[in-house]
Amino acid sequence: MTDYILGIDGGGTSCRAAVARPDGTVLGRGKSGAANILTDPNNAIISITEAAKAAYRDAGLDEAGINGASAFLGLAGTNVGDLTRYVHDRLPFQHTDIDSDGLIALQGAIGDEDGAVAILGTGSIYMGRKNGTVRYIGGWGFTVGDLGGGARLGHALLQEALLAHDGVHARSAVTDAVLEEFKHDPRGIVEFARLSKPGDFGRFAPLLFDHARQGDPQAIAIAKAGAATVNESLDAIMALAGAPRLCLLGGLAPLYPDWLSERHRSILIEAQADALTGAVALAANRRKDRTGAAA
Amino acid sequence: MTDYILGIDGGGTSCRAAVARPDGTVLGRGKSGAANILTDPNNAIISITEAAKAAYRDAGLDEAGINGASAFLGLAGTNVGDLTRYVHDRLPFQHTDIDSDGLIALQGAIGDEDGAVAILGTGSIYMGRKNGTVRYIGGWGFTVGDLGGGARLGHALLQEALLAHDGVHARSAVTDAVLEEFKHDPRGIVEFARLSKPGDFGRFAPLLFDHARQGDPQAIAIAKAGAATVNESLDAIMALAGAPRLCLLGGLAPLYPDWLSERHRSILIEAQADALTGAVALAANRRKDRTGAAA
Repeated sequence: MTDYILGIDGGGTSCRAAVARPDGTVLGRGKSGAANILTDPNNAIISITEAAKAAYRDAGLDEAGINGASAFLGLAGTNVGDLTRYVHDRLPFQHTDIDSDGLIALQGAIGDEDGAVAILGTGSIYMGRKNGTVRYIGGWGFTVGDLGGGARLGHALLQEALLAHDGVHARSAVTDAVLEEFKHDPRGIVEFARLSKPGDFGRFAPLLFDHARQGDPQAIAIAKAGAATVNESLDAIMALAGAPRLCLLGGLAPLYPDWLSERHRSILIEAQADALTGAVALAANRRKDRTGAAA
Repeated sequence: MTDYILGIDGGGTSCRAAVARPDGTVLGRGKSGAANILTDPNNAIISITEAAKAAYRDAGLDEAGINGASAFLGLAGTNVGDLTRYVHDRLPFQHTDIDSDGLIALQGAIGDEDGAVAILGTGSIYMGRKNGTVRYIGGWGFTVGDLGGGARLGHALLQEALLAHDGVHARSAVTDAVLEEFKHDPRGIVEFARLSKPGDFGRFAPLLFDHARQGDPQAIAIAKAGAATVNESLDAIMALAGAPRLCLLGGLAPLYPDWLSERHRSILIEAQADALTGAVALAANRRKDRTGAAA
């Protein structure tokens, strides 16, 4: 049986897999459902296996071949050690390496080089690599962390709308837009906030950046405060990165650069590839480590 | 049957009542269980009735007399109109007036005069009275409001501890104390935050003020940020108050003054009386309004 490698990108909404030759040349891709190892590890195992089989079929290979594969998985929620071990031990691949979804994103974005990546989506997490070692900052979630993420920005905007309603802060177009959405009843904002998940707050982030770009003073204040926390975290992560190379990923990546410090803006690079490509590369690297550089 | 009045202070942990002569002279007091009309309106009706009966017994009066009383109730959660009406219609008193717990606190603190009150406890709410009309600011709860309350201060401290752990902000004695409490495992803070109610965050507020008073730079920064939001809200409420008279109430009232602007510190007064006394005074006022000033 030919020894293929598998790169797998598993997240809360879907799971993607790519099968490749040992040198990393992708032969086929597959997709399946959610692979959230925190909320449903057994279902994650099923999704991961299905995505792998679909990739084999896409490549014209027998799906039973996944049992011989060397797989590298980047999964959300891997900071809970027990569940990672549980999933690891129940997957069908010959070799299985599991790491964070952040690591495969970093690998995709900057390849094997040193540098740093910031994932600015609903949350915010920072990774820096120096001589092959990756360090993390942030990513603690909405409640007491992720200060630069869209959820916290949206949350700050709702809060600002309430302050404007109370006459504590000045009103502006952006707070008017929010109050309008809640029919000028502050209790609607309070109730929305009570029921909302981070992603619900996050959907206000694009509105915020829109108004900030148009010069709205309250929107600018919130965008600047968010950018200040990102700048601080970037300072900390660049101190852990082996090279002045920074890549922004996530939904807010196109929106943030104008608000960041010049010292960070000046070292921004485009991502080389996506997280799935990063997973394939890491699978190839790990296989090489196991079999010797000649393989 | 003699026409007595009742003042009632109903909150989430207990309900207190005082029976008084129509002129406000208190004859007896009673206490019962929780009277939270938001979470359990039927139980609130029972607690209110029990506290009233206990006050009558304490005064040596027949508890059946509560049916003839003119009662003024200050209750938490009265911004939900339907429940207030529900409770109002099921209470046994001859006359029943229900308003917020804030209003009776204001009445107790500054009597019939114009001025303002800030309740700085787990949350933060501001009230100003001008020519008898009371206006409110804040009090929107932990999630998107109550910026000056103990819950938000404690929350900010936990967040600061995570930033210190990540090396994004400098460490200090107060962040070390928090990290020590969680055995230097940031996941402990994240898990605590996930499970916590506002009061759980609020218990870190005294620790914060302790360290701030001792000169801890991180604690000072959080205390100053909290005081800045209180100063802003006080500016807004003093603009709605008919006289430069300000009273701080709530668990943080003794801790905040040193951090506030001189323009607010200089008009601080001590509370004349507590919220229950305020409820009795409002019951007397309402009865007078109904029966004519001669009664």
